[in-house]
Amino acid sequence: MNVLVIGANGQVGKKVVKELANSNHKATAMVRKEEQIDKLKEIGADNVVLANLEEDFSSAFDGVDAVIFAAGSGGSTGADKTMTVDLYGSIKAVDYAKEKGVKRFVQLSAVGSSNPDEQDEKIKHYMVAKGVADRHLQQTDLDYTIVRPGPLSNNEAKGEIKISPEFTDIGDESIPRVDVAHILVDVLDRNNTYKKTFEVIQGEKEVGEVLGAL
Amino acid sequence: MNVLVIGANGQVGKKVVKELANSNHKATAMVRKEEQIDKLKEIGADNVVLANLEEDFSSAFDGVDAVIFAAGSGGSTGADKTMTVDLYGSIKAVDYAKEKGVKRFVQLSAVGSSNPDEQDEKIKHYMVAKGVADRHLQQTDLDYTIVRPGPLSNNEAKGEIKISPEFTDIGDESIPRVDVAHILVDVLDRNNTYKKTFEVIQGEKEVGEVLGAL
Repeated sequence: MNVLVIGANGQVGKKVVKELANSNHKATAMVRKEEQIDKLKEIGADNVVLANLEEDFSSAFDGVDAVIFAAGSGGSTGADKTMTVDLYGSIKAVDYAKEKGVKRFVQLSAVGSSNPDEQDEKIKHYMVAKGVADRHLQQTDLDYTIVRPGPLSNNEAKGEIKISPEFTDIGDESIPRVDVAHILVDVLDRNNTYKKTFEVIQGEKEVGEVLGAL
Repeated sequence: MNVLVIGANGQVGKKVVKELANSNHKATAMVRKEEQIDKLKEIGADNVVLANLEEDFSSAFDGVDAVIFAAGSGGSTGADKTMTVDLYGSIKAVDYAKEKGVKRFVQLSAVGSSNPDEQDEKIKHYMVAKGVADRHLQQTDLDYTIVRPGPLSNNEAKGEIKISPEFTDIGDESIPRVDVAHILVDVLDRNNTYKKTFEVIQGEKEVGEVLGAL
């Protein structure tokens, strides 16, 4: 499949592109700045499209078979960007996928987005953005998978995870970004993950085994 | 009807409570702070409930026949509050109305919320919040009416308006808050406004005539 990676220049996004380069799929990396093109090609993107999540980016969906939405405005900008990028960027991506007949949609979300009111004051608005975007996707008839990792680390791949529809308490658990990127790509071909939303942290079982049993 | 006014202490909310006091309805004013109770009763609320939009406020819906959502975090707080109050507050209110069988839901929105990407950078996130909240309401089977006024003024009531599903350009037009409050209350009993969304600015035709012809 030709997979559109939205947020390809992000911390998880770049790892997703690398994973796709080592898979049976092709990566179309969507980035905002021209100077990011070469780097994305270098790490394995078959194609790079220039588009801005805060504008109309529907043209990025032409010729695409699946979408991985891994965009986030990050911690260095304000909550206004969380609204226009994390939330509205996802909503528009889902709408474009519907319009253009791209059925497969994998969304990177976060543990905590199912219950924003119970989160720490500092991240509550972020969890609202992710949770509302997820709900919008869940209400479509797309073949979606929503992956909600716990706190992300830059540790090296562990390759072993634990999942749940919703953990009651993840304690201090986290998950390496590289494992999250692997999951986002690994689920693409698994139709048992269609219409499913799950939380994931590192664990003791091999990724393929866990996802296969979903 | 017993009408729950969410955001009753706001600039439009207080005027809504006053309008309700002069109507055949009763106002249940929802406010956040105890010191706001007396004032709301003074201006005509039959009942005041203490609840916080950033928490679970479902109990405010008990015994209620209709909702007017007029809450907004305002300009003095950050975009994080726009997310948790303007957006998520409305989404939760709609969910509670569904759960508790409150069918009639009137929402105060804003001109510009139908196309956030075309708005000025400073208000874009606000328009996303309003637009996404409106979409959530539109996808329910509630008897909703979404009222999207142009820029609000504190001018005295004009009582004459102009409406459109979506104006192409409202120029410098505005509308007095008191007229908006009147509209939010006036539509309650008009079942020709069910499942409708419209923009409104001041105009040349009397409010009742315009709303009756919707």
